[in-house]
Amino acid sequence: MVDHRGRPFAELIGRVVTRLKKFYRTENDVLILTASGTGAMEAAIVNTLSPGDKVLAVTIGSFGDRFIEIAEVYGADVTVLGFEWGTAADPEAIRDALKADSAIKAVLVTHNETSTGVTNPLQEIAQVVREADRLLLVDAISGLGSIPLATDAWGLDVVVSGSQKGWMVPPGLAFVSMSERAWQAFETSKMPRFYFDLAEHREFLKKGQTPFTPAVSIFYGLDVALEKLEAEGVEAVYARHARLAQMTREGVKRLGLELFVRDERYASDTVTAVKCPEGVKVKDLRNLMEDEFDVVLAGGQGKISDSIFRIGHLGLVSEADIQDVIESLAQALPRLGFAVPAYNR
Amino acid sequence: MVDHRGRPFAELIGRVVTRLKKFYRTENDVLILTASGTGAMEAAIVNTLSPGDKVLAVTIGSFGDRFIEIAEVYGADVTVLGFEWGTAADPEAIRDALKADSAIKAVLVTHNETSTGVTNPLQEIAQVVREADRLLLVDAISGLGSIPLATDAWGLDVVVSGSQKGWMVPPGLAFVSMSERAWQAFETSKMPRFYFDLAEHREFLKKGQTPFTPAVSIFYGLDVALEKLEAEGVEAVYARHARLAQMTREGVKRLGLELFVRDERYASDTVTAVKCPEGVKVKDLRNLMEDEFDVVLAGGQGKISDSIFRIGHLGLVSEADIQDVIESLAQALPRLGFAVPAYNR
Repeated sequence: MVDHRGRPFAELIGRVVTRLKKFYRTENDVLILTASGTGAMEAAIVNTLSPGDKVLAVTIGSFGDRFIEIAEVYGADVTVLGFEWGTAADPEAIRDALKADSAIKAVLVTHNETSTGVTNPLQEIAQVVREADRLLLVDAISGLGSIPLATDAWGLDVVVSGSQKGWMVPPGLAFVSMSERAWQAFETSKMPRFYFDLAEHREFLKKGQTPFTPAVSIFYGLDVALEKLEAEGVEAVYARHARLAQMTREGVKRLGLELFVRDERYASDTVTAVKCPEGVKVKDLRNLMEDEFDVVLAGGQGKISDSIFRIGHLGLVSEADIQDVIESLAQALPRLGFAVPAYNR
Repeated sequence: MVDHRGRPFAELIGRVVTRLKKFYRTENDVLILTASGTGAMEAAIVNTLSPGDKVLAVTIGSFGDRFIEIAEVYGADVTVLGFEWGTAADPEAIRDALKADSAIKAVLVTHNETSTGVTNPLQEIAQVVREADRLLLVDAISGLGSIPLATDAWGLDVVVSGSQKGWMVPPGLAFVSMSERAWQAFETSKMPRFYFDLAEHREFLKKGQTPFTPAVSIFYGLDVALEKLEAEGVEAVYARHARLAQMTREGVKRLGLELFVRDERYASDTVTAVKCPEGVKVKDLRNLMEDEFDVVLAGGQGKISDSIFRIGHLGLVSEADIQDVIESLAQALPRLGFAVPAYNR
């Protein structure tokens, strides 16, 4: 490892932050934490809010619920606006909720809900929140860099992401952008924070450092990955994810399976949630796929852990990979008692 | 990366935790966080204390001061027992401080103070704290696994370490052990915590997982490193560090330089702090050593940042490395105006 207080690391973090900003589409500060994405979600909350602050938490799945839990642990007064799992949030309902309570200071929302494979209409949501002049904290962990998101143009105040998603590097680093409005909120925010104190991160970043020893090795991977992504181009990266997602959904439906997302316009371009056919156990399917086809499917989370499985298609995934997953499912499902319709490769 | 909710990761984390316990010398829970060591220091505090709790913070340098800052941010009522930088803490002074205030619930102490190159007499300190029946939280980040420490035999309640130190792997993982007493304190502890909630970590560890996505790649490195360390044997690892440290101190003194530690019995076996000779700027020495001799020295921290430099000798460091550092210093110092005494290789 290089010395994280030395010149080579300062150059590395400078380069990485500059490149991250292009994918964040922002001129705001982007700070890098050594943590999982959840750590950055916690940072988003504790750096902008005070105990007792009213927040509106929009949730469409288990990661939306996590944002609520964090806010509540730190003493925020949370109003929950939940939508049925498998559906996206309705911007008009958010508008109504904000109109109904002018004391709501901030809105928490998930960009791409990994647990259900649903992407929220973030641009429309942001417009509503901007019109109501509240703070908007976005968990964009599993979407940023893969699905369109424009921090500055959409007016997103705090946007969180994590290294192991579309950035194609190992987990261990998480990112947070802070708008001017977010920094103003920071000034009066009273939630306790030390490891996740973003002002400290901003201060140290000026000299090319982090306040505490960073996960240096992952910075190196991130630097290379961002260079590749930059060469490909932001729009081309989005298009690649859209193409693979489309291919996944079509493949799944060809097998006679049903998507978990209710309205395909909100289907996630990074992960597809599929209803497990009746009579087939998710666990059996996952084990069979891994043991005999070398394909690792994700299970469901929370209340849908036994009824769906998920196919990830973000980052370093090719069309051949998706083809392989669909073909493997076509072979595995009949062995578990589900008759796959006549299947054309 | 393997699926961190899958079987291969469960085996990996199980093996790593079992091995870590041997170096912790404990049967207590050892939990692994994706964070810098500072994150684990924060975890130690927020999982055992409540706002308003009285704690005695023993500090002999900047990492002792950091423990104080964290406790204060979360609302603890901190009594500071500071000792001059370059000296170790006096167990008798700790005994007196605990006698003077029976309301003190916990003691915070640094095992090995990286900023000054001083190792505290932790066993004696622990004895005093055990006799007074208070909780003992230990920052052992830069010593554990390299310098003798026996969690159970000494009665240490919370012991914190970090992957990038004697464990020889990249930064990104931090470890925390929790004694039964610490878990009892957890039950009534009211400081807010989510990402660093150790009960969640304990719960997920039962199924071979972490609550949030862990830095998987670093687990692989740690697994290999622990296997090597285990093959070498705990006592042999301690002896290796003691030998290299002794060699470093002797080499430095032969150059006519003075150690920063006041009493060599407390000199750290993982890092040696050296007074920068008068007339030589620390920054110039560090730059010259790096640019022309390929040796990276650390500077000082806080109030001694311009008066000392430090030589690390923990983890993957050989006698040849130390010899190289001393020889390079012998060549570099005269070029900066410091006359090195007649020097024998």
